[in-house]
Amino acid sequence: MAELVAALDVGGTTVKAALLDGDLTVLATRRERTARSADGTALAEQVASVVTALAADAGTAVPDAVGVVVPGIVDEQARVARFSANLDWRDVPFGDLLERRLERPVAFGHDVRAGGLAEFRVGAGQGTRDAAFVAVGTGIAAALQLDGRIYRAHGLAGEIGHIDVGHPGRCGCGATGCLEAIASASAIARRFTERTGRPADGAQPVVDAARRGDEAAQAVVSEALDALAHGLRTLLTLVAPEVIVLGGGLFTATEYVLDPVRDWLAAGLTFQRMPELRTAKLGDEAGRLGAALLALDTLRAS
Amino acid sequence: MAELVAALDVGGTTVKAALLDGDLTVLATRRERTARSADGTALAEQVASVVTALAADAGTAVPDAVGVVVPGIVDEQARVARFSANLDWRDVPFGDLLERRLERPVAFGHDVRAGGLAEFRVGAGQGTRDAAFVAVGTGIAAALQLDGRIYRAHGLAGEIGHIDVGHPGRCGCGATGCLEAIASASAIARRFTERTGRPADGAQPVVDAARRGDEAAQAVVSEALDALAHGLRTLLTLVAPEVIVLGGGLFTATEYVLDPVRDWLAAGLTFQRMPELRTAKLGDEAGRLGAALLALDTLRAS
Repeated sequence: MAELVAALDVGGTTVKAALLDGDLTVLATRRERTARSADGTALAEQVASVVTALAADAGTAVPDAVGVVVPGIVDEQARVARFSANLDWRDVPFGDLLERRLERPVAFGHDVRAGGLAEFRVGAGQGTRDAAFVAVGTGIAAALQLDGRIYRAHGLAGEIGHIDVGHPGRCGCGATGCLEAIASASAIARRFTERTGRPADGAQPVVDAARRGDEAAQAVVSEALDALAHGLRTLLTLVAPEVIVLGGGLFTATEYVLDPVRDWLAAGLTFQRMPELRTAKLGDEAGRLGAALLALDTLRAS
Repeated sequence: MAELVAALDVGGTTVKAALLDGDLTVLATRRERTARSADGTALAEQVASVVTALAADAGTAVPDAVGVVVPGIVDEQARVARFSANLDWRDVPFGDLLERRLERPVAFGHDVRAGGLAEFRVGAGQGTRDAAFVAVGTGIAAALQLDGRIYRAHGLAGEIGHIDVGHPGRCGCGATGCLEAIASASAIARRFTERTGRPADGAQPVVDAARRGDEAAQAVVSEALDALAHGLRTLLTLVAPEVIVLGGGLFTATEYVLDPVRDWLAAGLTFQRMPELRTAKLGDEAGRLGAALLALDTLRAS
């Protein structure tokens, strides 16, 4: 019988769910507002009903396994969400909780690491052994594939958004100089508004304004990309990926944002290997596809 | 029959060699001046004669396998020394070369990663899964044990000495702000001499002067330890080791140098896990013990 998995990418506001077969063909999709409770039970109930609904939509049996990914600090080894500001969770053992509720195998993961897994296996990072996926969104985080395996460190690995790249700005985490306080999509929008008094809905309008010649926008984007390059230089000096996959809405403006980063690195590296910089292929689907891959891995290992 | 390996830690000036059994009991040792040639053949000849001499010294058979570690950039996977300033080597396929010469299994590795392997298996890092060994000497480099395995990236991993910690000094590599340009033992000595006009043979006399209250020495040591803490913060934000083992002569003055680093980290971390900081246990023996472990691993895998 063909494999069948449900995959859910759970954000602070939206659950993106899909039913997929073993070839990652999408048989049905659902999108709902996230059901929130501090103990995770509301989300477990929602996952249960979404899984049933997906199977009904597609006219299939109930899926063999379910993959769920969430943001924050997720210890995949312990199947516990240590901390998620977006879900208001702290030490929620969601993997076990959901598995008891569904009575079938559950894979529980982290959104960015799952997105990286998808990019490495079926997206822009295919064929690599040592690679990084850097997701630039509200925050900045990295998924690391080292010696062909996702490196987790109990959910603490890859926090590139919080390395100090040497600017005086304060980060939401409480430290000064964090990469994401200057180069995340939200930091770009905020810094543009601070400089001009004009609102910006995310980074894209700022990048668009920069391309049209707006000097304030150009300064903000340029500072962000310099900081990002600085962060990538540190990453590659420590873990030397062959390929760095850059994800997030910013990188749809490919050449405009990728070229300065590449030039900064090419000028700044001395003995280090210049990694290939690629833009992500899977876009918003990466997290959900990663959740599906985690569910399939669980199924195949059981 | 008992296992028997020869282990050689090759530096730019000295070869430290030993004959060991499978329990890492040292049966004989030798120390010679390094025989140098750009193609590696002089060293291969030297290794062959040292191996024979060690067996004669101990009255044993010729060892079953030989482990050799060298400084620089060593691609253990390809068994090639990509670059070693100390040996004047570039792309020397020393692993294969020596194996043909000796007609027995050869393990070829990198001195710092081998030292880390020894600290993780039989030294200060025992019992860890995710750990880093940071060796502060002429330069600064790290060995990373991730998910229980040494991470190599074709010899490019762990170059923590060349991450930018935000100082204006120039590094030997050509870049500005590198950690090792301010915090290596040689940088500490050089910066002390620049500031005072007084010579210093390595970092130890500078640390001793600082402990006696010399203000110039205190400033140099304090700047070095701040920079080191900055570098460790970046390392732990990206790879989140449970334990960081600090090696090098500097850390024999344990509490005096370790406490400021620990305090800096404790004050500067926000959400990150504070790793346990430990001083290395194996000292100068780490590289040779690591070479022996690599040889034993090769023997047991064959």
